[in-house]
Amino acid sequence: MLSGLVLSLTLTYPATIVPRNGSSRRIANGGRRKEILVLDAAAATLPRKSGSVDRLVRLAETDMAGVNRLITERMQSDVPIIPALAEHLIAAGGKRLRPLLTVAAARLAGSDNDHCLKLAAAVEFIHTATLLHDDVVDGSALRRGKVAAHLIWGGAQSVLVGDFLFARAFELMVETNSMKALEILARASRVIAEGEVMQLMRSHDLNLSQALYLEIIQAKTAELFAAASEAGAVSAGVDVAKTDALKAYGLQLGLAFQLVDDALDYGGATETLGKNAGDDFREGKATLPLLLAIARSGPREAEFWERAVGRREQTEADFRRARELIIGTGALDATLDLATDYADKAKAALAIFPADEWREALEDLADFAVSRRA
Amino acid sequence: MLSGLVLSLTLTYPATIVPRNGSSRRIANGGRRKEILVLDAAAATLPRKSGSVDRLVRLAETDMAGVNRLITERMQSDVPIIPALAEHLIAAGGKRLRPLLTVAAARLAGSDNDHCLKLAAAVEFIHTATLLHDDVVDGSALRRGKVAAHLIWGGAQSVLVGDFLFARAFELMVETNSMKALEILARASRVIAEGEVMQLMRSHDLNLSQALYLEIIQAKTAELFAAASEAGAVSAGVDVAKTDALKAYGLQLGLAFQLVDDALDYGGATETLGKNAGDDFREGKATLPLLLAIARSGPREAEFWERAVGRREQTEADFRRARELIIGTGALDATLDLATDYADKAKAALAIFPADEWREALEDLADFAVSRRA
Repeated sequence: MLSGLVLSLTLTYPATIVPRNGSSRRIANGGRRKEILVLDAAAATLPRKSGSVDRLVRLAETDMAGVNRLITERMQSDVPIIPALAEHLIAAGGKRLRPLLTVAAARLAGSDNDHCLKLAAAVEFIHTATLLHDDVVDGSALRRGKVAAHLIWGGAQSVLVGDFLFARAFELMVETNSMKALEILARASRVIAEGEVMQLMRSHDLNLSQALYLEIIQAKTAELFAAASEAGAVSAGVDVAKTDALKAYGLQLGLAFQLVDDALDYGGATETLGKNAGDDFREGKATLPLLLAIARSGPREAEFWERAVGRREQTEADFRRARELIIGTGALDATLDLATDYADKAKAALAIFPADEWREALEDLADFAVSRRA
Repeated sequence: MLSGLVLSLTLTYPATIVPRNGSSRRIANGGRRKEILVLDAAAATLPRKSGSVDRLVRLAETDMAGVNRLITERMQSDVPIIPALAEHLIAAGGKRLRPLLTVAAARLAGSDNDHCLKLAAAVEFIHTATLLHDDVVDGSALRRGKVAAHLIWGGAQSVLVGDFLFARAFELMVETNSMKALEILARASRVIAEGEVMQLMRSHDLNLSQALYLEIIQAKTAELFAAASEAGAVSAGVDVAKTDALKAYGLQLGLAFQLVDDALDYGGATETLGKNAGDDFREGKATLPLLLAIARSGPREAEFWERAVGRREQTEADFRRARELIIGTGALDATLDLATDYADKAKAALAIFPADEWREALEDLADFAVSRRA
């Protein structure tokens, strides 16, 4: 499944990705062979439209109130620690982007029933379960600006409450009686787990190919965006072409989102630092801005990268130097260009729908994915 | 859901459970109130028939070969560490009791198609996922006689591969196109997670009521036995009465199994020790043999229990003393009597079916649940 999607990425890579010198090396990966993509500085930075999630939030207000009621209702359990732990994370908010996508896709596709609300709540539960497990796996201290749940209740409880939410998600899906939606979200859940394992094994590998980086962010992030949209479309009973269009929108949006997340860790487009900036660098995490900067740095910097990222022997000044190199080599702009390209593709996928307020709100969301500063 | 089942346990408790002095205290538990059941020494030990799993294994041989093929096939992934880790646990064997139940229930109920094979593989995946997560949660060193997976690949990988298998289970269920089977197994997965959380919070609580102990083993063990049988029945398209009978069989069998597991940790009926005997005692785990022995011990032993189990300050000789008390107070026999009673109830539930070879094999399995020595 993964290979098919990676292939399509390879075939449709954006204008900013060009094979260097027209040459291509080949690597073995899980028994398959893939092109290594090499990003070079684009001739010019792509224009980025400023977007907003506000219009979508307003349009989906009633639906999302229903989704939030379902979330609160279905995270209850006779075992009191379960809702307490789940609530800690869920009430901390986050943008609820994934359930928003499900609702918006369903409404854009003409749904006039409320099945999408249950699917949206299921999507948020799957996402919450993966966050709980992620934070245990990474030993993260913070999540959504609060102390991570595993530091309060313990890793064991976080793992088990994640399992609870995952199972609850499937109970909710069963209630919608849509086997297709179950298929989509079961598959996405499996691909996310594969992506997390890949990330765990390769995230500190500075020789990570850019193709594999894209494969990882697709699996761990974009697949759930795609599944969230597709499940919404399915709940509306719309035709295959429109369902595929909404799935493609979600996938490209998810890729754009993750790329921008990775760019924001180095200050993003604004070149002003958010409060969590530098986390990826301190962890030596192989994200695209870093991989590109390393590839574009001269031999003089090789030793710096090897020490500060490879061996993670860092001084106070290292993050600033890394950031200068990431900006100076054009790595940050190239990352954001790639994100912009994906966001544009996401918007283009919506052309099959009439230009109503839902479509415009989703277009706005795609622009927001790239223009946001946090 | 849990409360309803606990209630039915309360109403149908076996002959060996008698309220002491006819009195009953009431405790608050998650906002509900329940009777505390107090087990006393039975007038005489119930007769225990020797059983075997061999007949069932032989009958189900072809089906289980198909299940094993599916298991091997569906634990594959493009991410190589996933099948390696899963295989470590799955190839270590275990009795494959749960998938056996699914297949046997389907065949007893007259199924002539192979949907039960996919459901059986899904059941084994759910079980494997919970074992992987359990071992991380408990920090267990051994599983099925091998080094636990998390000690080889790390806790993070075990958590994520558990997630992978859980999602794969749902993908398999979707393929059978049975919404009812999905409902049953999604619910069971959720109840297991609740049971694990309860166990984690209360497993060292020597004031654990016997009712809550039964609630925990029902949730963490018996529910999956029940769901495995019920899903098999559903795949055969049999009527509600027969489906309920097979569900009841699985539930009672699961309770018997867990009770005997807990008894075997103190030597079981044979009073000869298996190789893992004493693990529960060393961990201070509040299982029924221990809870009963503590309740039946005199004031002279109170200090021993408090030190060795409550504070877990143990000497070499403590396990032997605990075992003597557990046997001497009749706690071990009472536990096995309760298991025998559940096994008898399991067999009785099958009376709705004609006495063919599948029914006899399942009756044999119920006897085996109690008579086994490991």
